[in-house]
Amino acid sequence: SRSLNLAVIPGDGIGQEVVAQGLKVLNAVLPQDVKLQTKEYDLGAQRWHRTGDTLPDAELDSLKQHDAILLGAIGDPSVPSGVLERGLLLKLRFAFDHFINLRPSKLFPNTATPLAGRPDIDFVVVREGTEGPYTGNGGSIRTGTEHEVATEVSLNTAYGVERVVRDAYERANARPRKKLTLVHKNNVLVYAGHMWKNIFDKVGQEYPEVTTDYLHVDAATIFFVTQPERFDVIVTDNLFGDILTDLAAAVTGGIGLAASGNINPTGAFPSMFEPVHGSAPDIAGQGKADPTATVLSVALLLRHLGFDAEAGRIEEAVSADLAERDGGTVRTTDEIGDALAVRVAG
Amino acid sequence: SRSLNLAVIPGDGIGQEVVAQGLKVLNAVLPQDVKLQTKEYDLGAQRWHRTGDTLPDAELDSLKQHDAILLGAIGDPSVPSGVLERGLLLKLRFAFDHFINLRPSKLFPNTATPLAGRPDIDFVVVREGTEGPYTGNGGSIRTGTEHEVATEVSLNTAYGVERVVRDAYERANARPRKKLTLVHKNNVLVYAGHMWKNIFDKVGQEYPEVTTDYLHVDAATIFFVTQPERFDVIVTDNLFGDILTDLAAAVTGGIGLAASGNINPTGAFPSMFEPVHGSAPDIAGQGKADPTATVLSVALLLRHLGFDAEAGRIEEAVSADLAERDGGTVRTTDEIGDALAVRVAG
Ligand SMILES: CC(C)[C@H](C(=O)O)[C@@H](O)C(=O)O
Ligand SMILES: CC(C)[C@H](C(=O)O)[C@@H](O)C(=O)O
Repeated sequence: SRSLNLAVIPGDGIGQEVVAQGLKVLNAVLPQDVKLQTKEYDLGAQRWHRTGDTLPDAELDSLKQHDAILLGAIGDPSVPSGVLERGLLLKLRFAFDHFINLRPSKLFPNTATPLAGRPDIDFVVVREGTEGPYTGNGGSIRTGTEHEVATEVSLNTAYGVERVVRDAYERANARPRKKLTLVHKNNVLVYAGHMWKNIFDKVGQEYPEVTTDYLHVDAATIFFVTQPERFDVIVTDNLFGDILTDLAAAVTGGIGLAASGNINPTGAFPSMFEPVHGSAPDIAGQGKADPTATVLSVALLLRHLGFDAEAGRIEEAVSADLAERDGGTVRTTDEIGDALAVRVAG
Repeated sequence: SRSLNLAVIPGDGIGQEVVAQGLKVLNAVLPQDVKLQTKEYDLGAQRWHRTGDTLPDAELDSLKQHDAILLGAIGDPSVPSGVLERGLLLKLRFAFDHFINLRPSKLFPNTATPLAGRPDIDFVVVREGTEGPYTGNGGSIRTGTEHEVATEVSLNTAYGVERVVRDAYERANARPRKKLTLVHKNNVLVYAGHMWKNIFDKVGQEYPEVTTDYLHVDAATIFFVTQPERFDVIVTDNLFGDILTDLAAAVTGGIGLAASGNINPTGAFPSMFEPVHGSAPDIAGQGKADPTATVLSVALLLRHLGFDAEAGRIEEAVSADLAERDGGTVRTTDEIGDALAVRVAG
């Protein structure tokens, strides 16, 4: 019999609530013969307040033993900005070499978009996850004085860029439209930008069927709101990917629906799946959070582990659930989870 | 009698056409007693192809003698990405210490926005113009090989941050809503981000009437499309400002209307005014470009030089012109310029 050994990090704010629904739907969709084991990890703001720990080595080692990680949300205003992001979330992404940060964006029927005309949006952003300005490489001198100088270094390697670009070509090649857009800012960030563009062009020679395009990040944001249907697969660096995927979430019905996977495709480390949204402390514990983004992240998790049919069933359930939302009736976090669990089981 | 000694850099693509309309409107609005002198500088793609020059010292020195600079657009696909941007446009911004990159965004009545519901948008982005990842500080080793490493360094100084933050507080304080939002990414870019936030908070103590807010750049893009009316003045770094102002232009009727000023408020060097849009080589020379962004940039130029009434007249003329556009009739670049010139004169 098969098994799925899952690490669960509920985290802060609405993390606990949405993760509970993700697990509910996972339980409902998994075939009978799959033995699901979960282990919860107490990491996040409360743990940090209690012990000062963000992610001790023992827990990092233990997390490594799992097939995958499901994460709710990390962050709380009571913790100084950066402590949990760098010490926990980014530490996991870097320690487990999650070089693919996969973020699909689809405008489901019947969901609200701020865009007039409801364009046909269905693209996926392949965001680099282990380099760029996210490496923590930087510092400051004369900190806090009028002579302070602070730097942030964006680190980019041919090794790191090539593997994410190749993954993006593979994904584009497997989709009907076979279109890949590189987003960078190579007219200003000429060193990193030219390396990205050169590698993008070089790897592209191996994928003659994929149509390619290049956009500066500033221009890309324009097309996200005026012509989002032009995108199929987008590959971009860590910081630009962060910005673009929040914007993508906003135009496709909001951050409550945006799923993501922090993926190491080699299988050397467990991949981690999380909604794009944050911990939303203002609505935590009130049953107001939409668990759909977490449930869709569970679908990405299942697909990553080879449960393609089950992933598809979750996505169809979400699509059907959204199609029946009427905007008037407000359901609780739990009710949405129940509805999705019923759909995937049925 | 007063005088205005203007440098004009038409540049590439549609630059020539839109600048001609900017000057037309400027001539029409200026009081009789102001003697307008203009000197045109041949800089941009053609010059580079002909001579290999982007911005020779002699021309930089000469530009310094003017009261202000009006620039059309720089860039052409025939020139490698970065050559003209770094060698001309950014060189000017840095040489003349344009630390305020001012970019107002207003949704005029009757202009098309991709946003449903036509929110009430009227904010201004104060983008830092001389630091951040734009300094050209970076490099690459083993360039072009599989072992390449490329860096981009974001440089930030307390001196540079404080002066732009202070300028933004002044602008916020002078506006009816008196609200200032700092946009950065201080949960990841902790060194630069914390310095920005600390200086923002410190300077804020001198402006007790200004309401302040902080947003991560990714979250800010969400609000740009879901709740743009929440913004009044935004202050941010060079790269985030680049991205946000293109998005702002997109949601407020498109890049054809977005004006900008590269300002040195000390007066030590001439400030430079330019539309946010690029050279649009695909429509160059066809009379299709909308010169409104350039005309609005002329208004910013006039206000910077103390011609407040004239700046206001241009803005009213644009507003009235937009209000009468019917979407059906397509006017040429020249016709729009003529219409605006008539309005400001009358
Ligand atoms: C919380 C933060 C560190 C994170 C990021 O910047 O990657 C988040 O914005 C995201 O997109 O997952
Ligand atoms: C052309 C480019 C160098 C420039 C920038 O990035 O600043 C442009 O995008 C802008 O916003 O003025």
